[in-house]
Amino acid sequence: LSCVGRSRLSTKPTAGPAVIERIARSVREAVDECDLDLRQVQAVGVGAPGSVNPEKGEVIFSPNLPGWEHVPLQKALTKLLDRPVRVENDCNVCTLGVYHAELKAKPRHMVGIFLGTGMGGGLILDGKLFSGFNRTAGEIGHMVLEVGGSKCGCGNRGCFEALAGRAALFRRIQCGQGRTEDALDGHVGAGSKEPAERRFAQGAQARGQTGGTIVEEAAEYTGIAVANVINLLNPEVVVLGGGMIQQLEEEMMAIIVETAQDYAMTGTWKGVEIVASELGDDAGITGAAVLAQGALG
Amino acid sequence: LSCVGRSRLSTKPTAGPAVIERIARSVREAVDECDLDLRQVQAVGVGAPGSVNPEKGEVIFSPNLPGWEHVPLQKALTKLLDRPVRVENDCNVCTLGVYHAELKAKPRHMVGIFLGTGMGGGLILDGKLFSGFNRTAGEIGHMVLEVGGSKCGCGNRGCFEALAGRAALFRRIQCGQGRTEDALDGHVGAGSKEPAERRFAQGAQARGQTGGTIVEEAAEYTGIAVANVINLLNPEVVVLGGGMIQQLEEEMMAIIVETAQDYAMTGTWKGVEIVASELGDDAGITGAAVLAQGALG
Repeated sequence: LSCVGRSRLSTKPTAGPAVIERIARSVREAVDECDLDLRQVQAVGVGAPGSVNPEKGEVIFSPNLPGWEHVPLQKALTKLLDRPVRVENDCNVCTLGVYHAELKAKPRHMVGIFLGTGMGGGLILDGKLFSGFNRTAGEIGHMVLEVGGSKCGCGNRGCFEALAGRAALFRRIQCGQGRTEDALDGHVGAGSKEPAERRFAQGAQARGQTGGTIVEEAAEYTGIAVANVINLLNPEVVVLGGGMIQQLEEEMMAIIVETAQDYAMTGTWKGVEIVASELGDDAGITGAAVLAQGALG
Repeated sequence: LSCVGRSRLSTKPTAGPAVIERIARSVREAVDECDLDLRQVQAVGVGAPGSVNPEKGEVIFSPNLPGWEHVPLQKALTKLLDRPVRVENDCNVCTLGVYHAELKAKPRHMVGIFLGTGMGGGLILDGKLFSGFNRTAGEIGHMVLEVGGSKCGCGNRGCFEALAGRAALFRRIQCGQGRTEDALDGHVGAGSKEPAERRFAQGAQARGQTGGTIVEEAAEYTGIAVANVINLLNPEVVVLGGGMIQQLEEEMMAIIVETAQDYAMTGTWKGVEIVASELGDDAGITGAAVLAQGALG
């Protein structure tokens, strides 16, 4: 798989049905960017947030897309693009990308964990995506790790996302340092084009490890979450991805692996690998291409 | 499936190879109890603690059986009993029993959670037992729910088992009441034949709800553990079993379900059932019978 063209559009989730037209526009722009014709595209793969039924090509519901309930996304896009279309949940699509393009589909069981503002996961069990009863499996961001801990956006307390997500890191640094962006910009220059996590790490370094400690803490929580998943599912490989890992791999990975080993049961841990994905932000489009290949059957 | 004879022997885990002879003796005694001949038994099913390879019929390792590493249990028992034998992990066997005998194998995905001194689990995914890479999946007792919480027998802190297991309950009541057994016996009579959990609940009641609060807390932790599993795996049914549920179902189940609902994601929760197993202590022998049926092809 190689990427020949790309285009990025904001979702504008409040736009209603126009969201689907924007997706189609983005496909046309990416095709145009690499001087191809849409008719040369054999199939289109889509990762959508929320609960997705890939057989029906339907978004069952999506907390981040108001009003999206039982939306026939596959059918609508097929009509707009006149190409075969496949849809899956976005974290599942990232997991597919990592599994097929990075791991060459070698491990039998794999868990993908994607860390950013939100935290999501995807499960490959017996070589196939596992989605569960309501097609929502992999919701690792709301695994409670600390009963009564930090308040989470979901309304509960102590969720992994609330303890170690990007928002949690920024909130903690804010407590000690005034407004986050100011705190960061004061150290690495206002208007920096660097991703927030990198600026965060640099700012932390400049301030003499306070932020470092916060990042270490996030890595420890992540290691515990990984151990919980290992103890429950005993996968062969756990792959970590998403913006936070892409930017803070060096600061976080060793701590994540060490902590996970501490908390995983000895017999369960044996031979299990925890690795960082090299795909970064491209996990999604890579997985969507894998999904599209499936459409060619 | 109906039970026609039973026999119970302690494992005596330090006895080494004699443990297998004790298992064979127990089979012979159960057969004798119902006036059958061993030659009339079509197959034998065994649930063994630890990591088990059911295809090889081998106990890979077992933390509770010193020295058990790669023990060919199936082969040894087949030789001793001259009957077809199948072995599986004990929690998996309980899960099989619940799934086939109680749920008639109807749900596609089910998680069994067994609460007692130890806490174990078993996973049925896509209608089949799921064991993972090292055949240890389902280790729910060591899921961390409270970072830095109570010390667990495994050496870590904040594990579900350390927060809500039988030992944890008894330890808490001990703190306030001197020695547990004395405290219990003081209220319900020394040498009572009632199971410890029931005496515990009765003692708690007699003392005016202190113990009740402790049981409620255990139920809340259990509900959070169940929600973590639901968010991660999105099973259709979660079945709770084991000594604690058998004895404290009335006190715990409503709280477990309510707490799990609070912590499960809305879309994930829809239609998911949480039920108490009616099999009690017989989940294991029932599942072993299901396993034995499999040996008949």
